[in-house]
Amino acid sequence: MSGSASEPQTAPMRDDAQVLPVATHPVAVAQALIRHPSVCPDPGPAQHLLARVLEQLGFTVWHLPFGEGAERTPNFFARLGTASPHICFAGHTDVVPPGDEALWTHPPFAADIQDDVLYGRGACDMKGGIAAYVAAVARLLSQGKQPAGSLSFLITGDEEGPATYGTQKVLEWMAQENQIPDYCVVGEPTNPRTMGDMVKIGRRGSLNAHIVVQGVQGHVAYPHRADNPVHRLLSVLDALRAQPLDKGSDWFEPSSLQVTSVDVGNTATNVIPAKAEARLNIRFNDLHTGAALTGWLKTVCRQHAPSADVSVKISGESFLTAPGAETDALVKAIETVTGRTPKLDTGGGTSDARFIALYCPVSEFGLVGASIHKVDEHTHVADLETLTQIYQTFLEGVLA
Amino acid sequence: MSGSASEPQTAPMRDDAQVLPVATHPVAVAQALIRHPSVCPDPGPAQHLLARVLEQLGFTVWHLPFGEGAERTPNFFARLGTASPHICFAGHTDVVPPGDEALWTHPPFAADIQDDVLYGRGACDMKGGIAAYVAAVARLLSQGKQPAGSLSFLITGDEEGPATYGTQKVLEWMAQENQIPDYCVVGEPTNPRTMGDMVKIGRRGSLNAHIVVQGVQGHVAYPHRADNPVHRLLSVLDALRAQPLDKGSDWFEPSSLQVTSVDVGNTATNVIPAKAEARLNIRFNDLHTGAALTGWLKTVCRQHAPSADVSVKISGESFLTAPGAETDALVKAIETVTGRTPKLDTGGGTSDARFIALYCPVSEFGLVGASIHKVDEHTHVADLETLTQIYQTFLEGVLA
Ligand SMILES: [Zn+2]
Ligand SMILES: [Zn+2]
Repeated sequence: MSGSASEPQTAPMRDDAQVLPVATHPVAVAQALIRHPSVCPDPGPAQHLLARVLEQLGFTVWHLPFGEGAERTPNFFARLGTASPHICFAGHTDVVPPGDEALWTHPPFAADIQDDVLYGRGACDMKGGIAAYVAAVARLLSQGKQPAGSLSFLITGDEEGPATYGTQKVLEWMAQENQIPDYCVVGEPTNPRTMGDMVKIGRRGSLNAHIVVQGVQGHVAYPHRADNPVHRLLSVLDALRAQPLDKGSDWFEPSSLQVTSVDVGNTATNVIPAKAEARLNIRFNDLHTGAALTGWLKTVCRQHAPSADVSVKISGESFLTAPGAETDALVKAIETVTGRTPKLDTGGGTSDARFIALYCPVSEFGLVGASIHKVDEHTHVADLETLTQIYQTFLEGVLA
Repeated sequence: MSGSASEPQTAPMRDDAQVLPVATHPVAVAQALIRHPSVCPDPGPAQHLLARVLEQLGFTVWHLPFGEGAERTPNFFARLGTASPHICFAGHTDVVPPGDEALWTHPPFAADIQDDVLYGRGACDMKGGIAAYVAAVARLLSQGKQPAGSLSFLITGDEEGPATYGTQKVLEWMAQENQIPDYCVVGEPTNPRTMGDMVKIGRRGSLNAHIVVQGVQGHVAYPHRADNPVHRLLSVLDALRAQPLDKGSDWFEPSSLQVTSVDVGNTATNVIPAKAEARLNIRFNDLHTGAALTGWLKTVCRQHAPSADVSVKISGESFLTAPGAETDALVKAIETVTGRTPKLDTGGGTSDARFIALYCPVSEFGLVGASIHKVDEHTHVADLETLTQIYQTFLEGVLA
């Protein structure tokens, strides 16, 4: 709808009289969401549609936009019931840009279905995941008995971008309003290849460091009159790489340090240069904190290159929800529906789960992620039904 | 004279009728040479003047230009007598460019003397050294008795440049003509600070290597799916630096490996790059050869980065003239004239002595080198007299 500025501002989708998709039908909900383009940050209509579907199911919706001007981010929190346990679903309506639309075999916002495959930007990341959870809730409620607990949705319109005015801000509001759940499921596409592959129960932290070493320039024939900053930097990088950071922990792979660039730019073969610099990234598990690693980096630099300038940016700390009753229920639901036991994993990139983990236990489970952020993003219709059944079985387990 | 293309082609300096400097007077000879500009390669007149001074002293001169067009290099070999021992002096009439002449407090080709200091391009590197040797020979001959041996000069007009058509070519001619001397003194400015500091009896070899490692690009969160070429290159450089190349030898300092540049140019903090490269220089002593070091570099690269591309350029092999009767005579002459015992050294950069060492024993001794290749190159008038006395005392020692 709003993907192009030249379209009319009063589009039919915004009309309250529009026909809403059948909430128990995940494919119908997913198609309706995909057909409201919402390249990050979501301009609003896709999220508005979702809020109205939830209101029809009986949810109370609090629209919580944050940010000003170009940064304005639509978000909402929706809740049904007040009893414990309070189980929340977190998701994002924004999507990454489609890139060159001419490369798509199906238009990115058409939600075409061909040979039982649904195509479109957001099909698996994560409008399809949202649709499956909505359908699971709708089916649960259609059984006629009230669930023994309460349900909520934490929906943001900026997860793929800076995420400054999204999930973090909604969580602050939820904390103020006593709306923090007992457990949260994030609908990110966690399965590498097949439904049932993997549940994420944590993520590694990430930091980037930039090290600049100043030396004393000189002629290679007289190294004792110079101070080679390349050698000092190499010694720093040797020391940083000399030992693995750890051997992994109960739920995490070993932490990983990758030197991503070393730069000197000296073309004179007979000259010891004056400056050398390096950039590195550390993906770290729950045995470390960003602050402790920063201290270690600075100590190693001080030992081998006292003049080094070290700047560190911590993108996120590691977090973990050690398996408990709710995660067990999710795993059991996956086993029941797919016949497969998922791996409990903490690898890969980051998601908004890092913010949620500061408030309550959280896990991530959704569709198959192989096509996300690519041309012809797609999901099998059968996977949408499988995921709906998994979410419903999970909810029946934790709200029994 | 010929430093500027706009000057007349028949300059007075080329006139055979011109007044030659008094050969026994090193300052007069040095001034005459400096006043014939000869930025590398020497266009000819400075060298022509020198040849005529030697002819007046009784030398036979063979003019030996090599190279064509812009590479044409004037050289000559001059000899007096045929008896043994045959003692040769090797030097160059070309000089490095003066740079911005406005920065000189005395014009670079004026050969001004102020406060007993002679200023000019080539004053110490090495028109002053040539002048002192000419004066030493002239004084020796003026004593009236024939020296017990023979004297020669190997003069090139391209030592500061590529040196392709200079000393190497003259040596080939000398070998063909049975003119290889028993001992050669090169008049380079070897004293770091004071006359008598240092005699060079050899030089280290030098090679440059360029190492390029190809890896497999990837995301930092999934290093096992990538192959980080920075890490492979760091491992190569670690292994190369892990042990000193040697602890030095009888007459040489330890060899030195300097990494002069490492370059990746990756600005994406979350990407493992596809390529990394490094450049290094090795200054090596007589315990190594360029070929053996090249083999070692390639072996280490094969171990840590099998895909590495290694290109090596050997600028020169190391050489040494272990002290014998002639070098002892030179040291004794220095002690007699200055009261100081020179260090027998093999450090520093390269000179044409590396070519001469392939044919006969060679040492290097000249003026104080602190101002060479700089603005306001200069030598103390007293040092020119001291060097003349040292050379004369040396010749009296070896030709007695
Ligand atoms: Zn996502
Ligand atoms: Zn020189």
